[in-house]
Amino acid sequence: MTTATLPRAHTERPVTDLPARFDAVRAATRALAAPLSAEDALLQSMPDASPSKWHLAHTTWFFEQFILAELPGFSAFDPAYDFLFNSYYESVGPRHARPQRGVLSRPGLERVLEYRDSVEERMRGHFARGALPDELARRLELGLHHEQQHQELLLTDIKHAFSLNPLEPAYRARPQAAPASRNTGEREWCEGAQGSVRVGASAWPSAAVFAFDHESPPHLSQLAPHALARHPVDNAAYRDFVGEGAYANPLLWLSAGWDWICANDIARPIYWGEDLESEFTLQGRRALDPAAPVVHLNYFEADAFARWAGARLPTEIEWESAAAALAVAGNFADSGLLHPASSPVTNSAAAPLQMFGDVWEWTASAYLPYPGYRPLEGALGEYNGKFMCGQFVLRGGSCASPGSHLRASYRNFFMPADRWQFSGIRLARDL
Amino acid sequence: MTTATLPRAHTERPVTDLPARFDAVRAATRALAAPLSAEDALLQSMPDASPSKWHLAHTTWFFEQFILAELPGFSAFDPAYDFLFNSYYESVGPRHARPQRGVLSRPGLERVLEYRDSVEERMRGHFARGALPDELARRLELGLHHEQQHQELLLTDIKHAFSLNPLEPAYRARPQAAPASRNTGEREWCEGAQGSVRVGASAWPSAAVFAFDHESPPHLSQLAPHALARHPVDNAAYRDFVGEGAYANPLLWLSAGWDWICANDIARPIYWGEDLESEFTLQGRRALDPAAPVVHLNYFEADAFARWAGARLPTEIEWESAAAALAVAGNFADSGLLHPASSPVTNSAAAPLQMFGDVWEWTASAYLPYPGYRPLEGALGEYNGKFMCGQFVLRGGSCASPGSHLRASYRNFFMPADRWQFSGIRLARDL
Amino acid sequence: MTTATLPRAHTERPVTDLPARFDAVRAATRALAAPLSAEDALLQSMPDASPSKWHLAHTTWFFEQFILAELPGFSAFDPAYDFLFNSYYESVGPRHARPQRGVLSRPGLERVLEYRDSVEERMRGHFARGALPDELARRLELGLHHEQQHQELLLTDIKHAFSLNPLEPAYRARPQAAPASRNTGEREWCEGAQGSVRVGASAWPSAAVFAFDHESPPHLSQLAPHALARHPVDNAAYRDFVGEGAYANPLLWLSAGWDWICANDIARPIYWGEDLESEFTLQGRRALDPAAPVVHLNYFEADAFARWAGARLPTEIEWESAAAALAVAGNFADSGLLHPASSPVTNSAAAPLQMFGDVWEWTASAYLPYPGYRPLEGALGEYNGKFMCGQFVLRGGSCASPGSHLRASYRNFFMPADRWQFSGIRLARDL
Amino acid sequence: MTTATLPRAHTERPVTDLPARFDAVRAATRALAAPLSAEDALLQSMPDASPSKWHLAHTTWFFEQFILAELPGFSAFDPAYDFLFNSYYESVGPRHARPQRGVLSRPGLERVLEYRDSVEERMRGHFARGALPDELARRLELGLHHEQQHQELLLTDIKHAFSLNPLEPAYRARPQAAPASRNTGEREWCEGAQGSVRVGASAWPSAAVFAFDHESPPHLSQLAPHALARHPVDNAAYRDFVGEGAYANPLLWLSAGWDWICANDIARPIYWGEDLESEFTLQGRRALDPAAPVVHLNYFEADAFARWAGARLPTEIEWESAAAALAVAGNFADSGLLHPASSPVTNSAAAPLQMFGDVWEWTASAYLPYPGYRPLEGALGEYNGKFMCGQFVLRGGSCASPGSHLRASYRNFFMPADRWQFSGIRLARDL
Repeated sequence: MTTATLPRAHTERPVTDLPARFDAVRAATRALAAPLSAEDALLQSMPDASPSKWHLAHTTWFFEQFILAELPGFSAFDPAYDFLFNSYYESVGPRHARPQRGVLSRPGLERVLEYRDSVEERMRGHFARGALPDELARRLELGLHHEQQHQELLLTDIKHAFSLNPLEPAYRARPQAAPASRNTGEREWCEGAQGSVRVGASAWPSAAVFAFDHESPPHLSQLAPHALARHPVDNAAYRDFVGEGAYANPLLWLSAGWDWICANDIARPIYWGEDLESEFTLQGRRALDPAAPVVHLNYFEADAFARWAGARLPTEIEWESAAAALAVAGNFADSGLLHPASSPVTNSAAAPLQMFGDVWEWTASAYLPYPGYRPLEGALGEYNGKFMCGQFVLRGGSCASPGSHLRASYRNFFMPADRWQFSGIRLARDL
Repeated sequence: MTTATLPRAHTERPVTDLPARFDAVRAATRALAAPLSAEDALLQSMPDASPSKWHLAHTTWFFEQFILAELPGFSAFDPAYDFLFNSYYESVGPRHARPQRGVLSRPGLERVLEYRDSVEERMRGHFARGALPDELARRLELGLHHEQQHQELLLTDIKHAFSLNPLEPAYRARPQAAPASRNTGEREWCEGAQGSVRVGASAWPSAAVFAFDHESPPHLSQLAPHALARHPVDNAAYRDFVGEGAYANPLLWLSAGWDWICANDIARPIYWGEDLESEFTLQGRRALDPAAPVVHLNYFEADAFARWAGARLPTEIEWESAAAALAVAGNFADSGLLHPASSPVTNSAAAPLQMFGDVWEWTASAYLPYPGYRPLEGALGEYNGKFMCGQFVLRGGSCASPGSHLRASYRNFFMPADRWQFSGIRLARDL
Repeated sequence: MTTATLPRAHTERPVTDLPARFDAVRAATRALAAPLSAEDALLQSMPDASPSKWHLAHTTWFFEQFILAELPGFSAFDPAYDFLFNSYYESVGPRHARPQRGVLSRPGLERVLEYRDSVEERMRGHFARGALPDELARRLELGLHHEQQHQELLLTDIKHAFSLNPLEPAYRARPQAAPASRNTGEREWCEGAQGSVRVGASAWPSAAVFAFDHESPPHLSQLAPHALARHPVDNAAYRDFVGEGAYANPLLWLSAGWDWICANDIARPIYWGEDLESEFTLQGRRALDPAAPVVHLNYFEADAFARWAGARLPTEIEWESAAAALAVAGNFADSGLLHPASSPVTNSAAAPLQMFGDVWEWTASAYLPYPGYRPLEGALGEYNGKFMCGQFVLRGGSCASPGSHLRASYRNFFMPADRWQFSGIRLARDL
Repeated sequence: MTTATLPRAHTERPVTDLPARFDAVRAATRALAAPLSAEDALLQSMPDASPSKWHLAHTTWFFEQFILAELPGFSAFDPAYDFLFNSYYESVGPRHARPQRGVLSRPGLERVLEYRDSVEERMRGHFARGALPDELARRLELGLHHEQQHQELLLTDIKHAFSLNPLEPAYRARPQAAPASRNTGEREWCEGAQGSVRVGASAWPSAAVFAFDHESPPHLSQLAPHALARHPVDNAAYRDFVGEGAYANPLLWLSAGWDWICANDIARPIYWGEDLESEFTLQGRRALDPAAPVVHLNYFEADAFARWAGARLPTEIEWESAAAALAVAGNFADSGLLHPASSPVTNSAAAPLQMFGDVWEWTASAYLPYPGYRPLEGALGEYNGKFMCGQFVLRGGSCASPGSHLRASYRNFFMPADRWQFSGIRLARDL
């Protein structure tokens, strides 16, 4: 626990809106777990996914480990939790093996909720003092964004687990929704910026506005003439792709993608029914909406579809330069829909639609450091940088992301074979 | 569900003591599950083990599928359960993949207990009629023995799951026990029968006394002059074996055993601490009792120890001919100890001790059909015969077996690498 | 190299016919390798198989290590060969990993043949003295039988390797053969002995006649009334089995066999064409002869066929008691046919036919020690005993076995999934 | 074979220097195979590597398939070779599984050399006509570069295979070399270009100068202030890194790199001896030269070393902008040294040294398409593009590359775990 130690001499700053945001984020996590039984909350359906209970505990441990443990009068809720609920911080110490998280029936869900109560109460005690050491205020900010990331993972992980249960349970009943409709006709294109563009966020905490370290520093990049599709690819188009035998045609796929298909006998998107008419959702199995964005594709599928369509995936720089001017608005987890929605027909804007929310959009960019990238100091420097190998960047957030968590410079990343996230496609092409 | 269908013309017979035994067995299972939370009951720590909840449901499904479904007025508690809770009956239909049993958070434990209630109530309704068709009375008898087998598996499976939790939870507090002690000095031998011996049980249900199909028919076998050790091998002796470097000496092991050691970096019994001073038990971690039988060994370990000790494992025929005259008495699950106990010092009998209970004793016999073996008809013919490949026979029952489940002719079987059962060693030697 | 050391005081005995047999066996091995290029001789197509060159070297090393190294004036041909060509003798020292034998392009085939020359020359030098120490004469005897085993493996291993080459090369052109024919009609049965029978060979070297340690000691066994089929199962019958969907019907298979089918997508015998009309042989691809014994089945296939046919496999005791009275004659490697041959129509004997040669016959017996079994002393004690786990016994030899290598008590053994040996089926049934 | 078909109407162009280059390249390949026995040429030590014989045949098939088959009077040398020697061209048809190339003892090496003769003779027949259709002249150009790539792979593959032979054979004796020496003292830095730079090659065949499709099109990129190390990292520095426990410190590694270390028990470079004093080379085992560039590192090792040294790897754009002005000169395969050489002490230039030859230099750039990238038409479009996933770019060529094959824009690529190539490190840092 030494590497995260607070600097000797430090300044304090007022806690401003952090307490209120802390309450809101913590409550949102608990609300997401509310529909789950203790048994549901224990499910780990694959090594990449974690039990909901683990998400509840790990996000709590983050505050205990990186903030409370630095403050006077600290004693651990349970010293074993450092081992159980550390995710991947080598600096902090050894930890329970990730693929074995599903074996932790103890502590039970109730005990984990007590852990949450205890940490929240102690955090609020410190807030009441009115100020926090600068470094801890920063960690608090980071911890809130961290917890929001786990909110989305909680949803995608439980969706995957439920999908393996032959009963196909629904996480939550479907909210009443005025079904939007959309022409699924001709593809429309929006021309992007070209030449030298500036992307990336100013480095936090030097800058006041939060961004993860890997979004920085701002830097120039060159864009060639190009256009982005106005809409994400929808289910109707993707069904055409499947129907035309795409999953049997090696010429459409990256070599690694074709190997993935052959090794796993893949024939369609992960949650689609064999008849290509239904999909498993957080509301159980539902008819496929032709006009809604196709979702739960991996990079191989997104890339192959683009090739089949005579287009390509956008780079993350193209995406960000188009998104920078747009409001961060869309179908987020906050709507409670928890599934991509088709966009309205009557939108006259020339700008791309549904850039934020609905589906994470795979980019053609490998997840790598920006020029001049510096990880955070100490254990929190393990947050992002060490994963910069083999992954691709996704942009824009999804129907399972908290809206307040997103921004144009936000970089998400997954391995090319991963398809349990709410990930889809926006096409691009050269002009 | 067709293959298990009842013959058209059948006779009935009075249900005799079956209802009372049904109640007792069903209550015993539920008592074993009582210390477990819903989360505990969902744990599946390896493909070979099943969640406690699954044991609770599968043993219930057995009665519903093979008895209730044959009787008038049947409707399934939940038609999906045929798929979820069929273990391996290919005749009955497809089923949920065994290694995926841990993903079934739904139905929840409460719902499974309702399932148990419902099946029990309906069974009792039929009992109240006073008679059951012959074939169904037989299946009921079989179902009770079947459920007793799962009682033991419930204990060994939860023990394995708990052992992987860094908190090492106790399944149950340790009962007050007058600690028996025993000289761990010189090994004593009891001479066995020789020449032609008759072993095996009369085929049930032709014979009135229940036995599994693979215990029959009775047949002659030839025994050479030999002796069995009076006691099972104890922890002190096995610790000597470990301490002398046995796990690093290939000459002591079967070739497959040595491969197993190298591939898995094995250095001691599965639940022993690295210092060879403690072991994980159903009461949590405890000091190793030098005088208690060593337990949780696989066939490779038992065989290697015997070689190291200048002895060998007994054949199942040797074992049975020695056990046939003994009372089926010992440290069974019924005692609540749930761990092997050392035997008293002052036993003057010439016969081998602790043949029943404490630890299953690995024999040198492969699990194969007796001459003239016939599996049961229909789906229940899949009960034993199809597993006759690669496994070794164990005899005598353990501290986790229900005492009323055992007999001298009882054949248990596991793969040579399996060590999560309460399995130990009794030595034999040629005379 | 210490454990095989010769006892200080030893007697000598005349070498009798050993020199002549040494010459014959060594020449036979070399003749088997004659059709192979240096490249062919390097092939290792799976971990279970070895390159021909390795067989040539290992059988030579056996004489060098266990005989020459014990005699005065010894110096190793190449000290590295102890590491390269030791198969599995832990007592002798570390060795090259078995699955990596195919990486040994050096020493080249020519060099290995020089090694053979050198060892043969030195052996003959010692023979010229007219006597060998007793222990070494025994090892020489053993070494000859050892080399004969590798002669058969050389053939089965190269057949497997060639089968994976899309060119399907022939090892050797087919000899002119008067094609025998046989009625493939009704199955005939020969009643076996019953009651107490004596099987097994007297322990060599106490007894003058060679037998491997695991064939001893002779012992009594009980046989129930039974019959053996007069002929091995032929291709026509096995094709019926395949044609009726046996490979898609789990009820015919052992559980482990069904797992093997599912995991490997098995639909027919290993060397059969998809149309069930041809098979790959050491003479290349040839039409399937309906009347010839089916060959290259594993235990799972043999067992499933027997179940489908309403019969069972014989035990090794049943087999041996029937074979004991028969001449060791049949279609062996010596005939040069190197493929099972159909038996003549007009055979009036009541005894089972083709017991020796053509195909190894899977028995229902697990490979285990006979009562009172004692391995040889020293390193050669690793020859057989340590493999007594998980394997099944085969009897009778095949068209790839040297005829002088076989006898009624001969026990061969392979894992139940192995099917690259010349293994087939003789049915048995209870009377 | 249809997709590569020649356009109906085509122009011809004179063959210029192509015949002479064809002869030179083909002769060079054969010279590389000269030290190998037929057995050596069959070795396949891992799925990623191919037998030398396969390289000899596949490069020949390339000319037969893509050129000869398009010309009048073609008949295949052996029609089976399309299946055997196609590497990965899905458009051309099915092919022999890559990991099974080592099983092809037939055709033998001699036959493959006849195949080479036949194709060369027929090619020369066409050259004698004085002109080739434009498209075929292009394919010939491509085929020569293709064969040069396989020349390097032949060396790295045989090195890997020989390293697994306990005899550690030398591919070739070491040439007499005036041993260069170099100060291994302080690291020197050369400042790179900054701002907008133009990189990439004009698209061939529109442009006259050959480049692979993925080197095009030329495009602008932004460079931040940075410097490159003057020398590649040498063995002395890398030994310090190992000696300080780098392979046991997770904080130095990418997460995927640390997983690779743990899963494979990695403790040092692949060909280094345990004592860190020697390395296996194409001349057998030799003492490690502290002043020579460290070689056979994978991306994980290169990246971790850079982090440990407080630096980073260069991007491929940084590398190319520094190399563009330099002569393509260095220690290539042509020197016959076949191992990295230390650089002379007395070099006064300010430019980076040893950019070409000695070791491929890992860059921090993922292997992705340049903006506006277009693959070649037809089957040859599979040459590069489909591998753009998960790989990293290496630059500059090695001691095993033919010098005439390289240029500043040349992009090589391998997976981050690959370390059997002659790959090393040049450091970079931000200014």
